[in-house]
Amino acid sequence: MEILALIGSPRKGSNTDILVDEILKGSKKAGHTSKKIYLYDFRISPCIDCRVCKKGKFICPIKDGMKQIYPKMEESDLIIFGTPNYWYGPTGTMKLLVDRMRPFGVNRKMEGKKWVLVTPAAEGPRACGPLVQMFQLSFDYLGMKFAGKVLVKAYEKGEITKNQRELKMAYKLGASL
Amino acid sequence: MEILALIGSPRKGSNTDILVDEILKGSKKAGHTSKKIYLYDFRISPCIDCRVCKKGKFICPIKDGMKQIYPKMEESDLIIFGTPNYWYGPTGTMKLLVDRMRPFGVNRKMEGKKWVLVTPAAEGPRACGPLVQMFQLSFDYLGMKFAGKVLVKAYEKGEITKNQRELKMAYKLGASL
Amino acid sequence: MEILALIGSPRKGSNTDILVDEILKGSKKAGHTSKKIYLYDFRISPCIDCRVCKKGKFICPIKDGMKQIYPKMEESDLIIFGTPNYWYGPTGTMKLLVDRMRPFGVNRKMEGKKWVLVTPAAEGPRACGPLVQMFQLSFDYLGMKFAGKVLVKAYEKGEITKNQRELKMAYKLGASL
Amino acid sequence: MEILALIGSPRKGSNTDILVDEILKGSKKAGHTSKKIYLYDFRISPCIDCRVCKKGKFICPIKDGMKQIYPKMEESDLIIFGTPNYWYGPTGTMKLLVDRMRPFGVNRKMEGKKWVLVTPAAEGPRACGPLVQMFQLSFDYLGMKFAGKVLVKAYEKGEITKNQRELKMAYKLGASL
Repeated sequence: MEILALIGSPRKGSNTDILVDEILKGSKKAGHTSKKIYLYDFRISPCIDCRVCKKGKFICPIKDGMKQIYPKMEESDLIIFGTPNYWYGPTGTMKLLVDRMRPFGVNRKMEGKKWVLVTPAAEGPRACGPLVQMFQLSFDYLGMKFAGKVLVKAYEKGEITKNQRELKMAYKLGASL
Repeated sequence: MEILALIGSPRKGSNTDILVDEILKGSKKAGHTSKKIYLYDFRISPCIDCRVCKKGKFICPIKDGMKQIYPKMEESDLIIFGTPNYWYGPTGTMKLLVDRMRPFGVNRKMEGKKWVLVTPAAEGPRACGPLVQMFQLSFDYLGMKFAGKVLVKAYEKGEITKNQRELKMAYKLGASL
Repeated sequence: MEILALIGSPRKGSNTDILVDEILKGSKKAGHTSKKIYLYDFRISPCIDCRVCKKGKFICPIKDGMKQIYPKMEESDLIIFGTPNYWYGPTGTMKLLVDRMRPFGVNRKMEGKKWVLVTPAAEGPRACGPLVQMFQLSFDYLGMKFAGKVLVKAYEKGEITKNQRELKMAYKLGASL
Repeated sequence: MEILALIGSPRKGSNTDILVDEILKGSKKAGHTSKKIYLYDFRISPCIDCRVCKKGKFICPIKDGMKQIYPKMEESDLIIFGTPNYWYGPTGTMKLLVDRMRPFGVNRKMEGKKWVLVTPAAEGPRACGPLVQMFQLSFDYLGMKFAGKVLVKAYEKGEITKNQRELKMAYKLGASL
């Protein structure tokens, strides 16, 4: 299985990043390959609701970093969405990416793919309700299959390294994919 | 009362824009003044979680369009957040703005201000659960007071003009603020 | 005469900003009105060479901050381009704006308008050759008329306030417009 | 020799892109390896003149796509700057990148590296004066060595494929590096 990890946090080495790495380590053990992308590095313009993607070849006409990310999403079997909980939702940058998934609503290229959510939250998993629901409804709509989530309490940079229990959970999730 | 309307949709003359205008017309009748800002016009960089705003003067160090928007938010008594429902949440652009409200978590400058939500959704109000909850939790956290919402079913550009009932509801909400 | 000042430096209160203000003060004395825009506050997407502006209504199809800036440029009689000298050219942000002036190449809406250049440079006026030439050729192409320039040596933030001679020159230029 | 090609044009398959590919083909023949980056895909924020890069580790504090591009520049022996001529200068996107090369002014990490310029221009090579001068002065300042340029007349998408003479020149330049 080919796994694509999309990191929506501003920092490399963030709690999100560390947890995603544990999943990827576990998945490697299970024989899967993976790629990781830091969304903050790419130019992701906001969806302008032009609806061009609803016609013809079902392609978004905006020429920016998504031209690199779309094919990687299409080639993967499972996508990990890694984003800290910002104001009870994904980071704005992660939301920009999700908004640009509109062509998949018509070309159905996400159909059958699996998805995983990784979210550190300062207030802990209890604060992640709206975020989880938003992703669940969105990816259900695209015909994707939920394959697991890692919601943890974390705030200080990299503090998750002290939480062996959560790291092991992430590793196990990866190994079980 | 001074009202600030933040438009998070990509188009001028969008359903969001039209509904917000009705609220503002009603509010004018009630003696309030208002300003309207199209978020898509401004450069709103993503929050980088640098936490500089947690210290000193509680100011975000990023120099971009928020330098114009922060003072307008601070000078207002009520803020209208107008955003279409994109993937069960606000538009990525609106989310970028909310993410940048972090200084208000410490300087408490939003405390006591009112907020209104305006959201057209292709699937109708029932699809707005996560979005409403995200905003409610966020603005509760900032000590803001909920003052009403307009959730309507709309998809085609400007189709809300045919829905006199909803337009009147929006106008009345404005007049009652 | 209506003057539009476009500030392409990252800081408010920069040497560029101060010099432009002096010109505007002088121009006010001479009876002109003015507006000032900080380009760093606006979302100015790069020209994508789609050439849509060469057809039909000669309008750029990109919906971003330029939707606010285009009409202000069209309504003005004189435009001040204020940009520090970065690597022997305008700032990247100012260059993004100039690149988006392409509709004016066909709709000729800049024809006959005047332009002024304001450029502080760490290495002084001698380092501004390519920048001046780039602007001169570009605005000649658009049929605009050169109305003066302020090229000064300045590097430290706001140091130009100590240079009364240059400030007076800027004021005089404004008064003579 | 490791070559890095930076493409500053909005399109893949542009005249810039085609010419750069010819150089890379030639260089491969000569035993060099190469990487190519499309700048429009990355988030390149404008330099904010914070001058943090002048102190300590001489690192730009802005966290965006440059975090991927800086190391690639540092690891290369020769950098090809490919940009169409826009308004007698590089594209705004290419200028944003050059503006962010400021750390190299102090850490001298570009010292001794070679550079090549590739510029298609609708008005032909004669229109490229300011652009060439801007790059020459900038890279001289960084201690880089000029290794050749390809300035050609081209406007229609991909029209350069019809110009075998220019393509051969590009190939030869690559083979001679």
